[in-house]
Amino acid sequence: MEQRPLILISNDDGYQAKGIHVLVDMLRDMADILVCAPDSARSGFSCAFSATTPLRLVKQKEESGVQIWSSNGTPTDCVKLALSELLDGRKPDLVVGGINHGDNASVNAHYSGTMGVVMEGCMKHIPSVAFSLCDHAEDADFEPLRPYVRQITEYVLHNGLKDGVCLNVNFPKQGEADGFRTVKGSYRGVRICRMANGSWNNEITTCHHPRGYDYYWMVGHYRDDESEAQDTDSWALDHGYVAITPTTVDMTAYEAFTQLQQLLIPHF
Amino acid sequence: MEQRPLILISNDDGYQAKGIHVLVDMLRDMADILVCAPDSARSGFSCAFSATTPLRLVKQKEESGVQIWSSNGTPTDCVKLALSELLDGRKPDLVVGGINHGDNASVNAHYSGTMGVVMEGCMKHIPSVAFSLCDHAEDADFEPLRPYVRQITEYVLHNGLKDGVCLNVNFPKQGEADGFRTVKGSYRGVRICRMANGSWNNEITTCHHPRGYDYYWMVGHYRDDESEAQDTDSWALDHGYVAITPTTVDMTAYEAFTQLQQLLIPHF
Repeated sequence: MEQRPLILISNDDGYQAKGIHVLVDMLRDMADILVCAPDSARSGFSCAFSATTPLRLVKQKEESGVQIWSSNGTPTDCVKLALSELLDGRKPDLVVGGINHGDNASVNAHYSGTMGVVMEGCMKHIPSVAFSLCDHAEDADFEPLRPYVRQITEYVLHNGLKDGVCLNVNFPKQGEADGFRTVKGSYRGVRICRMANGSWNNEITTCHHPRGYDYYWMVGHYRDDESEAQDTDSWALDHGYVAITPTTVDMTAYEAFTQLQQLLIPHF
Repeated sequence: MEQRPLILISNDDGYQAKGIHVLVDMLRDMADILVCAPDSARSGFSCAFSATTPLRLVKQKEESGVQIWSSNGTPTDCVKLALSELLDGRKPDLVVGGINHGDNASVNAHYSGTMGVVMEGCMKHIPSVAFSLCDHAEDADFEPLRPYVRQITEYVLHNGLKDGVCLNVNFPKQGEADGFRTVKGSYRGVRICRMANGSWNNEITTCHHPRGYDYYWMVGHYRDDESEAQDTDSWALDHGYVAITPTTVDMTAYEAFTQLQQLLIPHF
């Protein structure tokens, strides 16, 4: 009998988030699934790992053959721990992050713990896909994503991805950009995008503690710095499309090599 | 009178680390300097920011006009806080991370809090440079780096960098790769490199708690997965060169676009 593929799922919203449970439900007939996710929300954890914290793994439950584990570590820690400790040496065919409650397009890919999951899978040479919905609500409606999540997963299970490349898939919130949608409840289409050049502004809110000192909350407003460009993930999301941004582990800025040769010659 | 340039310095080893104090000393005659760094070590924090923690800023000291501030946040938080709260709206001419106690070449760039500092500067459209020495020792000898750190900083202050590109500069440990060095105490040369394709293995060490459960430490061994390639940062470091890896905010995997067009046509 042919062995079913194995999918490792994690996220940064924690093992109890709706998004990760919906994701398991969407994929459970396609593969063996193991979930290992943070024990509470770890949004904005990027590719952070825990260099100095002793880590724990706790089996939270097992439902219809799907084990759900939690860890006190980061999303990246969860992937590393699962690969090393929970799979008896079996290598997953796919690592999936999400479904994230919130947008991970543009520069948010750098801060995202969901992308941390997927970059870690990719650095372990496993095809990896992150799914995110532009809706932070705890009870966000993920159902419209189902056919897309299933088909993208099926495609990657079948065809793989180039080593060192993972997918960052973002979905607009239902009910936004409605003018662009041809069928109620579905998306306008799917686009392969590049990361938009965007920036966060007014990120700090200052508050005054009753004991007399200031403290700060990290907040901010995202701005698309090239909103005219139609090939970016931010543009796609703003116009009702599902945005697939292929993302690379190799962050080398090859286009800068020529300029930097100057740096070598006169000085050293 | 012409205003001196302004350099914002942060790190992930904390404001008390030797590397950041040496860095201030190396650059203080070239620019006004402000330090804002974590209040203790934050190694491996990547581009993480604190979405749910109230942040503090504490002025630790001021020496010869250089203010040193600490925060309970991540390296990324430190940059965001300094830009917003400590510079009276003045924009730094340069953000510098380091000097890190330890290697940030290859895939380590993804995990590095020092690179988190520099990516944040870069995402704020400020030329940004990370310096790291392949030596984790608290009392590591940074002096051999001085002429290189000064000249690279001077170059970037003068010439800037392409928007969206920062530099990840790594130095071999003195005394290693000695056979390659032409002059005792100096490096063999400087190379513009790409990020090596490397991986971490055996990352988890399991320990047994007296109360009966297992816990885990994140450790591991780095392996250069393409040690024959001579254009990588890992190769340069192993052969006695200073490695400058230009690094891009745009992680789009453009080379994957053609494959992924397949994903669109049959399914959606």
